[in-house]
Amino acid sequence: MGNVPYDVIIVGAGPAGLTAGLYAGRYRLKTLVVEKMMVGGQIMLSSTIENFPGFPGGIPTQDLIDRMKQQLDGLGVEIKNVEAASVASVAASRPRVYRVSTPEGDFESRSIIVSTGAHWKRLGVPGEEKLIGRGVSFCGTCDGPLFRNKEVCVIGGGDKAIEEAIFLTKYASKVMVIHRRNSLRATEILQEQAKANPKISFILDSVVEAVIGENRVEGLKLRHVHTNLASAVSCQGVFIFIGIQPSTEFLAAVVKMDEAGFIIIDTEKKTSMPGIFACGDCTEKHLYQVITACAEGAEAAHSAHNYLLHNGT
Amino acid sequence: MGNVPYDVIIVGAGPAGLTAGLYAGRYRLKTLVVEKMMVGGQIMLSSTIENFPGFPGGIPTQDLIDRMKQQLDGLGVEIKNVEAASVASVAASRPRVYRVSTPEGDFESRSIIVSTGAHWKRLGVPGEEKLIGRGVSFCGTCDGPLFRNKEVCVIGGGDKAIEEAIFLTKYASKVMVIHRRNSLRATEILQEQAKANPKISFILDSVVEAVIGENRVEGLKLRHVHTNLASAVSCQGVFIFIGIQPSTEFLAAVVKMDEAGFIIIDTEKKTSMPGIFACGDCTEKHLYQVITACAEGAEAAHSAHNYLLHNGT
Repeated sequence: MGNVPYDVIIVGAGPAGLTAGLYAGRYRLKTLVVEKMMVGGQIMLSSTIENFPGFPGGIPTQDLIDRMKQQLDGLGVEIKNVEAASVASVAASRPRVYRVSTPEGDFESRSIIVSTGAHWKRLGVPGEEKLIGRGVSFCGTCDGPLFRNKEVCVIGGGDKAIEEAIFLTKYASKVMVIHRRNSLRATEILQEQAKANPKISFILDSVVEAVIGENRVEGLKLRHVHTNLASAVSCQGVFIFIGIQPSTEFLAAVVKMDEAGFIIIDTEKKTSMPGIFACGDCTEKHLYQVITACAEGAEAAHSAHNYLLHNGT
Repeated sequence: MGNVPYDVIIVGAGPAGLTAGLYAGRYRLKTLVVEKMMVGGQIMLSSTIENFPGFPGGIPTQDLIDRMKQQLDGLGVEIKNVEAASVASVAASRPRVYRVSTPEGDFESRSIIVSTGAHWKRLGVPGEEKLIGRGVSFCGTCDGPLFRNKEVCVIGGGDKAIEEAIFLTKYASKVMVIHRRNSLRATEILQEQAKANPKISFILDSVVEAVIGENRVEGLKLRHVHTNLASAVSCQGVFIFIGIQPSTEFLAAVVKMDEAGFIIIDTEKKTSMPGIFACGDCTEKHLYQVITACAEGAEAAHSAHNYLLHNGT
């Protein structure tokens, strides 16, 4: 197999993929990282990370990602800005070689680490799709400044929704958090901060039925989950954080996934296909955090290294 | 249970325990961390950490630990410098309360996170025990400067042994790496660095039979594992890195462990005892790294928080 150009191709350059790259580089594996968007992945939609060990007071996300990327320098790890359209076994005659197909050509390797992360789920209600970029947003950090002195709604009750609600008060005059349950899921310290913020109000036990507006968001139609009563709120922006959807469509029928599309892995980050490993937010697991994604990247690289030792030429 | 002073007691303040503390504090759990030695734990025996994501060029271990500790400031997490002698359920009438006994008194909590780490294994050969501190060492960073222009042996072939061998060349005139197998286990980049270093030589397929010396280390008796031939090397120091032993004796009969004493946990870091979680080097797992210890600490705190939500007053 001396003609296989890479030992491992890492698909996705968020914290999981970058840490996998760091470890793969230190294991001296010939490593290619492919990333369809910008290096950093989904977390680039956050401005600051407060709970990554080693950074008291938090660190701007861009800085953390730049620092992780710098660690790959000098290790011979290649990074290409290109989308992986598919991953497949090359042929029955070369069962241990994988091909990653991209618009810029195919790349072959002896193993694969999938770290494609996830993206934010849509509500799936009328008006949402057509008003994306015209008031509907999945990124407070990106779009918050467009809503200076305007009123916005944040949909969701988890950490991300509450973090974004707090962030949006820097710009918006009023932030309404709309959540379908009667209590938030977010970490207590975030809930306290949000509840203490005079710009933030809460509309609980309520779901969004439609986004109102012709050319720009003008408001939301809501329904109370217990009373079933309909209501409406007026707003110029709506930020949607109701959970994540793994970016794994390109792997359909290649590795086992759960119903939502999260890749099923064992404790060594092995997928159902020998030689393909997965880590980070695209996998089925308990806790979706930057620190856990990094650790899983290290574990996936460790397992790929072991696999290559035992499946060598 | 309003009279239980802590929601969680974290036993051990290495990277796993400190990250558990960071997350527990952000979950607003009343949290006590107890540490018998210095904050940082076993990694304080290393001078620098090169492969922690976010620190290009590496970071001095003391700095990384200081930064992690600073993150607990302002979260109301208490840290006490005291040894946990035992952990037990308080009484059949209060099955959900645990007591951590220490020389400074007992502390009660509704859950426990064990992050006591591990320490370096002894060779178990004649001369080793009596010459600890007189040439026998488990810490190059601590004791390296004592061996300026002297000859030392490093026992082991893993990452830690090779890192320490490289570090010791700053002081010693000659570093002999003695390993029982015919190839090293260490990460390739470390092997390359060691092999390129003119001060480092390798004695493979060899085990230590005895440490020679009356009041100070004078040398080692070796045996070749294939030929069975005995030999001797002269040296003034011997640094032993042949694997780790979990620091879990104080928990014997409380939670399930494997034969070596590593705590058996599930994917949520639950031990066999409800309300007791474990993370880091004291647990049975695949990869023992600072980044994985941190992630496991976050996961243990997350699971403790969930447990407390469902086992409240």
